Amino acid sequence: MDAISVIRTKRDRGELTPEQIDWVIDAYTRGEVADEQMSALAMAILLNGMNRTEIARWTAAMIASGERMDFRALSRPTTDKHSTGGVGDKITLPLAPLVAACGAAVPQLSGRGLGHTGGTLDKLESIPGWRAHLTGEEMLNVLDTTGAVICAAGDGLAPADKKLYALRDVTGTVEAIPLIASSIMSKKIAEGTGALVLDVKVGSGAFMKTIEDARELASTMVALGTDSGVRTVALLTDMSTPLGLTAGNALEVRESVEVLAGGGPQDVVDLTLALAREMLDAAGLKDADPEKALADGSAMDVWRRMISAQGGDPDAPLPTAREHHIITAPASGVLTRLDAYDVGVAAWRLGAGRARKEDPVQAGAGVELHAKPGDTVTEGQPLMTLHTDTPEKFDYALKALPDAYDIAPTGTSFAPLPVVRERIA
Amino acid sequence: MDAISVIRTKRDRGELTPEQIDWVIDAYTRGEVADEQMSALAMAILLNGMNRTEIARWTAAMIASGERMDFRALSRPTTDKHSTGGVGDKITLPLAPLVAACGAAVPQLSGRGLGHTGGTLDKLESIPGWRAHLTGEEMLNVLDTTGAVICAAGDGLAPADKKLYALRDVTGTVEAIPLIASSIMSKKIAEGTGALVLDVKVGSGAFMKTIEDARELASTMVALGTDSGVRTVALLTDMSTPLGLTAGNALEVRESVEVLAGGGPQDVVDLTLALAREMLDAAGLKDADPEKALADGSAMDVWRRMISAQGGDPDAPLPTAREHHIITAPASGVLTRLDAYDVGVAAWRLGAGRARKEDPVQAGAGVELHAKPGDTVTEGQPLMTLHTDTPEKFDYALKALPDAYDIAPTGTSFAPLPVVRERIA
Repeated sequence: MDAISVIRTKRDRGELTPEQIDWVIDAYTRGEVADEQMSALAMAILLNGMNRTEIARWTAAMIASGERMDFRALSRPTTDKHSTGGVGDKITLPLAPLVAACGAAVPQLSGRGLGHTGGTLDKLESIPGWRAHLTGEEMLNVLDTTGAVICAAGDGLAPADKKLYALRDVTGTVEAIPLIASSIMSKKIAEGTGALVLDVKVGSGAFMKTIEDARELASTMVALGTDSGVRTVALLTDMSTPLGLTAGNALEVRESVEVLAGGGPQDVVDLTLALAREMLDAAGLKDADPEKALADGSAMDVWRRMISAQGGDPDAPLPTAREHHIITAPASGVLTRLDAYDVGVAAWRLGAGRARKEDPVQAGAGVELHAKPGDTVTEGQPLMTLHTDTPEKFDYALKALPDAYDIAPTGTSFAPLPVVRERIA
Repeated sequence: MDAISVIRTKRDRGELTPEQIDWVIDAYTRGEVADEQMSALAMAILLNGMNRTEIARWTAAMIASGERMDFRALSRPTTDKHSTGGVGDKITLPLAPLVAACGAAVPQLSGRGLGHTGGTLDKLESIPGWRAHLTGEEMLNVLDTTGAVICAAGDGLAPADKKLYALRDVTGTVEAIPLIASSIMSKKIAEGTGALVLDVKVGSGAFMKTIEDARELASTMVALGTDSGVRTVALLTDMSTPLGLTAGNALEVRESVEVLAGGGPQDVVDLTLALAREMLDAAGLKDADPEKALADGSAMDVWRRMISAQGGDPDAPLPTAREHHIITAPASGVLTRLDAYDVGVAAWRLGAGRARKEDPVQAGAGVELHAKPGDTVTEGQPLMTLHTDTPEKFDYALKALPDAYDIAPTGTSFAPLPVVRERIA
């Protein structure tokens, strides 16, 4: 077995054998297959594809490269959610405590933001004192006592994926559906959750720009999960416009707390409840009532315990940005488009995101929206407020926004896309 | 400009801009673009192609990465030949002195063998004392005094190509026509020859297995040379069966000396003369008579001076292998196929070639043929003799040969392919 013959097989549109896949993942993890060989293979996979059998074996080989967690000793059924990433996607924050309040255990291993999409850990770190990095024992303890834990994944889970993801990031090979699917699912299966709901974003602010690509990614991941004994469901959800009215770390925490308090923007509430029902259903808790758990404050109670258990102060004031810039509506009419990608890039440039893994983020930076598609606006009213600690960034952020929205004449009939577009199980 | 955007352009079937090409070749040579990025780009080029404009710029950028030689001070016109590599292809050995004997200067920068094809320098090094590595001054001196020089290319010519070729070799990206064409032509144009004849091999023993691929490679290279002011012609020549009756270093030197002495196998003589006529014609020496220069011994005189000038003894006995194994014909009839690739692999396994650049080769090892396609054979007569110093290699070499030939019933009418199949100018 050698790297060149594996690369040639995929280059020439052949099917990789189970032995080739097991060998190349293991040899790459050990450093026997070089980065330049794996990147050539990744490009061949991106351009020539892998079939379901190959993707399943590739995922299994990445899981086998590290340790697996085991939550079977918990008294509650485990259920988890993964989002493919979008702008203003703070759903994990209200969702994890909500599902825990309904009787499930939610072991949410999360990541940081890169590029125009935010990261759950970055958002939570805007809460004074909150720690993302827990030992395995601490994690189990928070999960067992509060019902939910949101923390950084340890290095032991799917190390092959960790190495391959870093390589794909610098070699233009991120956008391969077989590699995206196996990367996500190897971590989720190794994490040991019993049920999993996938939130596959589709639209300008998502990796998947078209519903067809989103469907392919979702059905690939559902098949991978199901074949590995994880009850897996996917919702395809809209990411043509930002979720809610905020994009930025502390701004999104504030909005999440509003949802847990029974308020918040309708699209965030709707998606949180839709995902909660799927997670509870997949965990076998058919009688749970997440709407009640939001209304009666029990989800908020779990949130407060969960944040405290990881060193955070749920009552501490959240950081705010020092400088603001307001963009006003240039005309009166109906807002028919507010582009998720453009808003995400603006928030990123204001300091909410990072260009490289080692960059810091600003807790208070981001974009606050004052109208959403479907809303009527009046000339001169605020459309968005830009927040940053570094006002020299306003110009660069504004450059992302000139074509970010469309306003149609007053009286135009317009129906925004529903948040949940399709369900794949 | 960054590597990922260049990779993405080609990955998404776009055309690379001149600025992208110049930048990526320069940045790769300087080490700013990493090996894993260049290999992903090479795979995208292999699978998605480059158009003529891109290939020309890519070649120019590789030439610009190093120094260029200049032979304009020589009193004779320069003309060179490049073969894409085959089994038993010793043509450079008689050809360079023959063309020099007809009045041209032949600056032949050659390489070593890798895999099943032999290398000109390996062959000449079986002559006691002969040195492949010359300084620039020594090279010019040999060329000026004898009319021909065959030596190793210095490190200064197209260093980007040197680095890229080594990378392609380990990443399954050798077989990309745009990259093969630009690799060959960047070195030949940087070498500074005024005229160039390309011997593009086609058949089982060649990199190009089909006449269509060979045509595409040849016409790509002819366009590149012509556009750079080098008078360039290509012959597509047969490599379905080995050239001549020997494959192996000293064995091929012996056969080459036979040709220079007016004998030798007909196909080697025919191809040597065909290439000599093209080289002389491209150099503007329309009245030269290579047939006469072979017959009257003047080509042999140049050979002897050229070998001596590089430290070799043209009268020294050539090394011979210590052990021999004869394969006999299993039936009487007409030999209709003798596979170049299989014979090349057998010669390589016997010790004539190397698996890695740093491996040594055996001077005496190789395969000697006693019949060629079209010949009548009798059951029990020798078909091939295997030569090696290490008889434990016979078994491994024999494993390459069970399907190496076909014998049709006596009386079968069979016409072998002509050596020269097409001419592209």
